[in-house]
Amino acid sequence: MQRIGILTSGGDSPGMNAAIRAVVRKAIYHGLEVIGIKRGFNGFIDGDMEPMRLGSVADIIHRGGTVLHTARSEQFKTPAGRAKAWENVERFGLEGLVVIGGDGSFTGASIFHREYGLPVVAIPGTIDNDISGTDYSIGFDTAVNTAVDAINKIRDTATSHERTFIVEVMGRDTGFIAVAAGLAGGAESILIPEHPFSIEEVCHKLCKGYRRGKLHSIIVVAEGAGSGLEIGKQIKERTGFDTKVTILGHLQRGGTPTAFDRILASQLGARAVELLMQGATCKMVGMAAGKIVETDLDLVLGQKKTVDLDVYRLASILAI
Amino acid sequence: MQRIGILTSGGDSPGMNAAIRAVVRKAIYHGLEVIGIKRGFNGFIDGDMEPMRLGSVADIIHRGGTVLHTARSEQFKTPAGRAKAWENVERFGLEGLVVIGGDGSFTGASIFHREYGLPVVAIPGTIDNDISGTDYSIGFDTAVNTAVDAINKIRDTATSHERTFIVEVMGRDTGFIAVAAGLAGGAESILIPEHPFSIEEVCHKLCKGYRRGKLHSIIVVAEGAGSGLEIGKQIKERTGFDTKVTILGHLQRGGTPTAFDRILASQLGARAVELLMQGATCKMVGMAAGKIVETDLDLVLGQKKTVDLDVYRLASILAI
Amino acid sequence: MQRIGILTSGGDSPGMNAAIRAVVRKAIYHGLEVIGIKRGFNGFIDGDMEPMRLGSVADIIHRGGTVLHTARSEQFKTPAGRAKAWENVERFGLEGLVVIGGDGSFTGASIFHREYGLPVVAIPGTIDNDISGTDYSIGFDTAVNTAVDAINKIRDTATSHERTFIVEVMGRDTGFIAVAAGLAGGAESILIPEHPFSIEEVCHKLCKGYRRGKLHSIIVVAEGAGSGLEIGKQIKERTGFDTKVTILGHLQRGGTPTAFDRILASQLGARAVELLMQGATCKMVGMAAGKIVETDLDLVLGQKKTVDLDVYRLASILAI
Amino acid sequence: MQRIGILTSGGDSPGMNAAIRAVVRKAIYHGLEVIGIKRGFNGFIDGDMEPMRLGSVADIIHRGGTVLHTARSEQFKTPAGRAKAWENVERFGLEGLVVIGGDGSFTGASIFHREYGLPVVAIPGTIDNDISGTDYSIGFDTAVNTAVDAINKIRDTATSHERTFIVEVMGRDTGFIAVAAGLAGGAESILIPEHPFSIEEVCHKLCKGYRRGKLHSIIVVAEGAGSGLEIGKQIKERTGFDTKVTILGHLQRGGTPTAFDRILASQLGARAVELLMQGATCKMVGMAAGKIVETDLDLVLGQKKTVDLDVYRLASILAI
Repeated sequence: MQRIGILTSGGDSPGMNAAIRAVVRKAIYHGLEVIGIKRGFNGFIDGDMEPMRLGSVADIIHRGGTVLHTARSEQFKTPAGRAKAWENVERFGLEGLVVIGGDGSFTGASIFHREYGLPVVAIPGTIDNDISGTDYSIGFDTAVNTAVDAINKIRDTATSHERTFIVEVMGRDTGFIAVAAGLAGGAESILIPEHPFSIEEVCHKLCKGYRRGKLHSIIVVAEGAGSGLEIGKQIKERTGFDTKVTILGHLQRGGTPTAFDRILASQLGARAVELLMQGATCKMVGMAAGKIVETDLDLVLGQKKTVDLDVYRLASILAI
Repeated sequence: MQRIGILTSGGDSPGMNAAIRAVVRKAIYHGLEVIGIKRGFNGFIDGDMEPMRLGSVADIIHRGGTVLHTARSEQFKTPAGRAKAWENVERFGLEGLVVIGGDGSFTGASIFHREYGLPVVAIPGTIDNDISGTDYSIGFDTAVNTAVDAINKIRDTATSHERTFIVEVMGRDTGFIAVAAGLAGGAESILIPEHPFSIEEVCHKLCKGYRRGKLHSIIVVAEGAGSGLEIGKQIKERTGFDTKVTILGHLQRGGTPTAFDRILASQLGARAVELLMQGATCKMVGMAAGKIVETDLDLVLGQKKTVDLDVYRLASILAI
Repeated sequence: MQRIGILTSGGDSPGMNAAIRAVVRKAIYHGLEVIGIKRGFNGFIDGDMEPMRLGSVADIIHRGGTVLHTARSEQFKTPAGRAKAWENVERFGLEGLVVIGGDGSFTGASIFHREYGLPVVAIPGTIDNDISGTDYSIGFDTAVNTAVDAINKIRDTATSHERTFIVEVMGRDTGFIAVAAGLAGGAESILIPEHPFSIEEVCHKLCKGYRRGKLHSIIVVAEGAGSGLEIGKQIKERTGFDTKVTILGHLQRGGTPTAFDRILASQLGARAVELLMQGATCKMVGMAAGKIVETDLDLVLGQKKTVDLDVYRLASILAI
Repeated sequence: MQRIGILTSGGDSPGMNAAIRAVVRKAIYHGLEVIGIKRGFNGFIDGDMEPMRLGSVADIIHRGGTVLHTARSEQFKTPAGRAKAWENVERFGLEGLVVIGGDGSFTGASIFHREYGLPVVAIPGTIDNDISGTDYSIGFDTAVNTAVDAINKIRDTATSHERTFIVEVMGRDTGFIAVAAGLAGGAESILIPEHPFSIEEVCHKLCKGYRRGKLHSIIVVAEGAGSGLEIGKQIKERTGFDTKVTILGHLQRGGTPTAFDRILASQLGARAVELLMQGATCKMVGMAAGKIVETDLDLVLGQKKTVDLDVYRLASILAI
């Protein structure tokens, strides 16, 4: 193996740059060449690719976003798009590909591998943490800390009236960020897609808390569980409590990555290069049970990962 | 003068604790006693008051919120409520009062002074910065930094498509936070109550930016200029751009105060005590032209402060 | 079991409050009473103890330090001191004890258990992360992020000359913080007690980096591997490079705990209560292989934990 | 006027990028061309210069350091060096120069203006804040907040023993950072070059504080007032207190600039361009009495700015 490509795809997540740095430097350390592919599969199709050197990844480990840029590619979902990408594989002499992204990107990579046989190693990079085969995906820890920081600040605003704060966090299909941020932030309620809830129940809990003397309540809502503004409106209607809503939105995707995300990204990136050198064909690297491991990419894609409900219940017990 | 009272009122703002600490310690330093009044004018009416010592304000300079708690008081707007407060003035032997808060709180303090003659010094504490007689109110600098930090994080999320980010910040009647955060954050557009705008114009500017090669645009909206979600919807309808909305909400009121806010609070708190000792009757302390100054409170209440449009225009020029 | 005690001991670490909150609330949830013991074993000896309620731990999850205060106790090392503590166990009716701290505190707890039979569960709380039986101790993640944040800031200071920055971090006997912060911060060299090094070698690497075009080099030094100032002096003498030293010191012990530390603390605290209720006699809770586990406390005390040298080498490879 | 040059020189400070962005965009807005000069006066001498466009300063407003890099130039102190720089002025057709830096850089600029007549406008960019003619220099607010953040973290480490923390901050000749950070951080003592002190006095104050019940004391030392480690040693010898030292060093020069520094930088940068267009010959822009003002550069260089001792005394009163 002499030359590999690397791209970031889908929604970006903090720590992707640390993963790129690890792939590039580990590869060069072992005598490989690395071609950086810009704008995800779009750059792969367009040939927007160029060699990366040691210096290309200097001073990026602490930056949010991705120096390779990212995109969602409709064209790569078509056979014609992938055929063009294959031309670039041949043109640039790539013998392996590292793909950093989430589910959608991995599906594309897997199909491409099946069709053209290019060895592929995937690195999970998404703040949603909804990829099976790994306990953590790159960016999740940073996104959770961003949400927790917001909850901290909201907690500061002292009040003498019943007041309810709602913080809407990302998570269309899963409540990973909501549960972790809610537990770490000491939220009174956490609303997630995986667990049914009724507004009555939420209001009942709020009222109980205020009767016990709580000055304020914080409710964390995963966007997939409902709109923060809508839930706030319903709570106000039912309880009369003053309800204030914060929607974090895309700021959860940014920020300088935490140490955890950078270390994870560094380890996964280095392992991805090792796997390609050892002849892996279609794998994902991840961290499971505290160790860096690999899984067949197709196995990853066939499984759904959901929130640990024990942790969810713990958050509820500790917020009594 | 032997004994003064202190309360925080209205919406809380970061740095109020630093002001409380300054008032208490400066007063004790000069041999005065200080009575802390809880929950704003409500505690004043209810007699929820107790002596503060040097240690009462230890280790609070860096905390958001206010150790005296705060509230909006409907009762203090009635003669009966104020009569009850006066009883507590007599009961606790107060010869002066320091009120930390915003416009509404100052109006209450001014009426109370007129009716009962208690010397009052007001300290401007509101993130909105909409109080005249001072260039900065306590908490504004912190709130702006919180908003700028959010913009930083959003700026990180790299994109290859036209994408527009909207950040809704506080400011019901004025655009101080929006203009400062927008200028400091390098926002492409800033929408404020003081300056009329049309969605057409905003969309036109967005399209021009993208044609020039901008990868993303950030629009800061003061809540008083419109709803971030609504504006986002309209932009999407007109331009087709992917539009993402962040609503910061009450997290702008929290957080550890910046050095600027703590120093300002310390200086204003100390000056407030000096003024009471020197026989002031109804003043506000503030910072104007880089100096700590005092103004008649009624003069402050009669004036409206609006955003400096030169700064607003500068933000626009620098974001071309 | 009806009543348990809880104390924090030794050097404090961020997240201890989250652990206290978890112990108190989990215990109350199961109908137990909790007695908070102040100032570590000193308060245990002096009877400086009082009941904790749900509200005692409200709004502390995000605070650094420990609301129970901590201390190192010379007196508890003596049989006389422990006898006095036993009197307080009887006086307060304690049937179990949760000790949050490090090695030294655990040794005291273990001896006390052996002498008097009081069931004890230990929770690892130390930024040094040098306790075996757990992959992470509470506070480590926060301390590493603090060190990484310092490295980020140093990385910003652009230079055109050869310049070397040294960051001295905590770690008297182990290099856990240094290795994690060095890897996450992209440091050029990491000096730790577990791995011998020579100044010649360090200087050689520095010179090689500058010849390759590096604008600056960052060296992370665990305090146990040498004095940052001394190493800086030696590097300057040998290479002539301008060398700047930062000593982080105790600021690594403070700060608002990260989400990771709060979640870990919450899980360990809750598990500690469960273990006491299930009849554990002398255990430590920890996180190993991604799971919450328990280990005999004496086993923990008999083992030494050192840095994973694979991670150390990875940091070196990625910083070429 | 058609073309101007811009350079950053001396020690870097956070916010320099915001100033560069403002100069470039304001100039282009008015139809001027801007040449960016790399590595301070060194690049001026070497002709390491290139045109800057709107996009050259995109996404830099939030970055520490300076995209133009900076350096101290020995060569520019010689007539030969300046003669070479003049050749580049002619080669690139510069009709004006913006210099961002401190005292040393301004001296060079002033001499160059006197010798060759090139119009020069200086922008004060140094964390030390020791430049007269302006109340604030770019980077000072950020550096103070960095120091205050360190003090916050140290304040968290609860203790039950007498313990003294020393934080050494930058400031070789002046105590601006020390006084601002000490006041904002609630430090018990602040040691600065402008104000004589004796260790006896410092120890006396420490002992008095502990007798009054203070759990810890924080002493902020400007590097120009003595070595933190040395002062710590002396305090320990005299009082027996456990003394812990933090040396912030160069991390004070980095970090993302605060909103205040970015707004100041934006205003000063824009004003510098206006001044050049209006025919200024040798000025510095600054902020005085809350307004953007200009001063003759030679007047600035002839004056010494020292700390406001009233603020210094206030810090002392509030830390009783």
